[in-house]
Amino acid sequence: MAEEIFQNETIKQILAHYKKIWAIGHAQSVLGWDMEVNMPKRAIQERSVAQGELSVLSQSFMLEPKFVELVEKAEGLELNDYERGVVRVLKRDIKIAKAFPPEFVREMSEVRSKATMAWAEAKEKNDYKKFEPYLDKIMELAKKAADYLGYEEYPYDALLDLFEEGLTTREVDRVFEKLEKDLKPLLDKILEEGRVPREHPLENEKYDQNAMEKVNLEVLRLFRYPLGERGRLDVSPHPFTIGFGIHDVRITTRYEGFDFRRTLLAVIHEFGHALYELQTDERFMFSPIAGGVSLGIHESQSRFWENIIGRSIEFVELIYPILRENLPFMANYTQEDLYNYINIVRPDFIRTEADVVTYNFHVLLRYKLEKLMVNEGVKASELPELWNEEMERLLGIRPKTYREGILQDIHWAHGTIGYFPTYTLGTLLSAQIASYMRKDIPDFSEKVRKGEFEEIKGWLREKVHKYGSMYEPKELLKRSFGEGINPDYFIAYVKEKYLG
Amino acid sequence: MAEEIFQNETIKQILAHYKKIWAIGHAQSVLGWDMEVNMPKRAIQERSVAQGELSVLSQSFMLEPKFVELVEKAEGLELNDYERGVVRVLKRDIKIAKAFPPEFVREMSEVRSKATMAWAEAKEKNDYKKFEPYLDKIMELAKKAADYLGYEEYPYDALLDLFEEGLTTREVDRVFEKLEKDLKPLLDKILEEGRVPREHPLENEKYDQNAMEKVNLEVLRLFRYPLGERGRLDVSPHPFTIGFGIHDVRITTRYEGFDFRRTLLAVIHEFGHALYELQTDERFMFSPIAGGVSLGIHESQSRFWENIIGRSIEFVELIYPILRENLPFMANYTQEDLYNYINIVRPDFIRTEADVVTYNFHVLLRYKLEKLMVNEGVKASELPELWNEEMERLLGIRPKTYREGILQDIHWAHGTIGYFPTYTLGTLLSAQIASYMRKDIPDFSEKVRKGEFEEIKGWLREKVHKYGSMYEPKELLKRSFGEGINPDYFIAYVKEKYLG
Repeated sequence: MAEEIFQNETIKQILAHYKKIWAIGHAQSVLGWDMEVNMPKRAIQERSVAQGELSVLSQSFMLEPKFVELVEKAEGLELNDYERGVVRVLKRDIKIAKAFPPEFVREMSEVRSKATMAWAEAKEKNDYKKFEPYLDKIMELAKKAADYLGYEEYPYDALLDLFEEGLTTREVDRVFEKLEKDLKPLLDKILEEGRVPREHPLENEKYDQNAMEKVNLEVLRLFRYPLGERGRLDVSPHPFTIGFGIHDVRITTRYEGFDFRRTLLAVIHEFGHALYELQTDERFMFSPIAGGVSLGIHESQSRFWENIIGRSIEFVELIYPILRENLPFMANYTQEDLYNYINIVRPDFIRTEADVVTYNFHVLLRYKLEKLMVNEGVKASELPELWNEEMERLLGIRPKTYREGILQDIHWAHGTIGYFPTYTLGTLLSAQIASYMRKDIPDFSEKVRKGEFEEIKGWLREKVHKYGSMYEPKELLKRSFGEGINPDYFIAYVKEKYLG
Repeated sequence: MAEEIFQNETIKQILAHYKKIWAIGHAQSVLGWDMEVNMPKRAIQERSVAQGELSVLSQSFMLEPKFVELVEKAEGLELNDYERGVVRVLKRDIKIAKAFPPEFVREMSEVRSKATMAWAEAKEKNDYKKFEPYLDKIMELAKKAADYLGYEEYPYDALLDLFEEGLTTREVDRVFEKLEKDLKPLLDKILEEGRVPREHPLENEKYDQNAMEKVNLEVLRLFRYPLGERGRLDVSPHPFTIGFGIHDVRITTRYEGFDFRRTLLAVIHEFGHALYELQTDERFMFSPIAGGVSLGIHESQSRFWENIIGRSIEFVELIYPILRENLPFMANYTQEDLYNYINIVRPDFIRTEADVVTYNFHVLLRYKLEKLMVNEGVKASELPELWNEEMERLLGIRPKTYREGILQDIHWAHGTIGYFPTYTLGTLLSAQIASYMRKDIPDFSEKVRKGEFEEIKGWLREKVHKYGSMYEPKELLKRSFGEGINPDYFIAYVKEKYLG
């Protein structure tokens, strides 16, 4: 019998009530997954109403006075770490649920829907004006949200905290200043030296979807992702991972029919997210501390598998035979071709297709503009010019259309402001974690080459995954690694990988 | 703008509250579908807890005093037919939700889980003793349920009503007496004359799953089932139809790899169910009168498409080319072979594989035993012998194993007692509806031959589908057809089809 981790009577009462909220969350996740993966087109109206009703229900259970009182009472009690985690997460959830008045939630949801439709049309027609008024409205609501939530220094802090508990503008500034100072010269040097390829004919090779799916499944089998037991691989317009519980964590990818590294690296990336959820302590089931703690920590896991493992020479060696067996055109390419193709560095317009190095400048650009809008009141009308200037300054290229510029991402239309920085934090952290891991597993590279991932997975479980959300991100890092996010590791990794 | 059908203020308040219940029902359906079609194995524990919590929530919203009061108040008001339908359905739902004390619901759910596991093991090992005590327990709980629900004449009436609103033992008795008297001699004559085939080599032909899936999709396209728009075809262990709303009605089938008529007729059968839900008046969306009114009426729709259309000579003519194109072995068989294969009549042990004629005797047998257990207190220990005797009397065969006898169906293990009779009611009604339709659409057969189904679908929509659950089953039949279920039509249909 597993040791009982929740002992306190008040905590037990809290968890009993929380089960309803958990069940609604479970249902919302399944409905969301189904919408992306399976749902027939015209089902959207009924599905949206169902999701809306479930959100309202969940919020009302979260704010039930009896429940809020129990959580407040629990704060003053002597608790173990697990129990303290439960109280921390719920206090935060209650605070967020309480912060927004119902009219605001309704307005936000309406503006979000309309803005998303306007964005889609604007992007299709390459007509920024169609989106501009909605972007102003979204930013106005974001500032309002920040006011409702409260902040110490900048309104943007309140928004950052929604995605990365405890993160501040000041900290993100420090990280990006460092990147500009140290990574920018590295990028220039990589491009100048020309040793790293800027393009490869494999980018244009067309693949058969069934064959590529076989490759993806083989790779997931190498990782021992529990397909059919505790997970699935499906197809959706944008790859994502979703956990319905500890024993049901599903990933998706997409098949574009060419440039196979996109679907392959997406699968490896999503596997990294899934592993985090799958390796959470099983005793956290049905509790608010099950599942990953923040977007940044989550992204560190996906990037670890995508960049550190997936783009390594040893991994290329491991999977080259699988690709040879399933993709006929691979007969014309060597293992070295595959490595070069997967490690191209090239300034380009689209963030989601960017390489490991330039990716962070795409994020920096968005972060700067978000800050300008939220903290400085810059208007949507000024953005395209700011975007283009910053793009030129950072990557030396200037988009010719809105579609490959400011209209490329859906995030702002969705109203998720403060989300982008977590992509870079995760990327930096993945290199940092890899460095710690190599100390504990000196034959790390050899293990990857042989496809022996169990020790690597076990290490990640012990250092990060098993804790779920019981510690806040900064505390988790301090406990497991003794330091917070430090860009030096990533810079050293880039230097060694591309200029070493 | 569509005419507003819900005008009364009290009804509007009722529907506003009902939206929560609708949303939970929507979520429960999606979770249920996912469980059958997609769910990884080890997800079962978390999924069961989520479903349990959602059931409790739904029941508590149904019994919220404010809501119950509104429904009671509405009963006394002057309402239109739509509004009266809402009140009728909700009164019934509230009555059922109120009837069972929480301890009973919990016990039922536990016994059901255990009984289902015991049944699966018993069936696998052909060991009835393993299931026997659970069957007694299930029947004891069924009698208790009947007492909670209340009844006028027999406890079994209360159980029948759960699946078919207003149906009584007395009525079902009358139907089956008629079938025994008139259908039994017809079956004997069919078997004696030997004109109708009792087997066909197509039963043993193996098919490729992808090829067969193409056939199924082609057939659904012939019917203009809105694949991808408002529906899907998926794979599950047992074929079923589920509606998440008016614009999302999904069907499943299974592929056994041989005897292709099973998967094909399953798809046609499920299409019939789906069409009923898809053609409900769109204005009923989010209300309790959306969706089919009862199992019997539903089954009449599925059987209409499966038997009346799917097994007709004209339909065989229509789909023969599709089968020829996709199944290589069909090159060795004529259209007549296909017709004979689809219309075999053969007394056999398994209900789900039975033909149109013998099927009803399988149901009669189960109905008799259920009545004996619920109304007369007959014990599970006596059942196998009763089963075998009745099988011999009705179909002239005696099962040699429990597996092909009393252990074949999951229904009793699931605690669904009173469900079986609706299979036969639906079958009878499908022949009855076909007879009415032929009067209104004299070139019905010609239309099927040409694959012109729109007028047929329109007729079903106007006579049955569009009403959703606004009228109770008997009233619906009286309004649309002027008479209730009458076995004569089915008997005439069998006589003409097999002896004509």
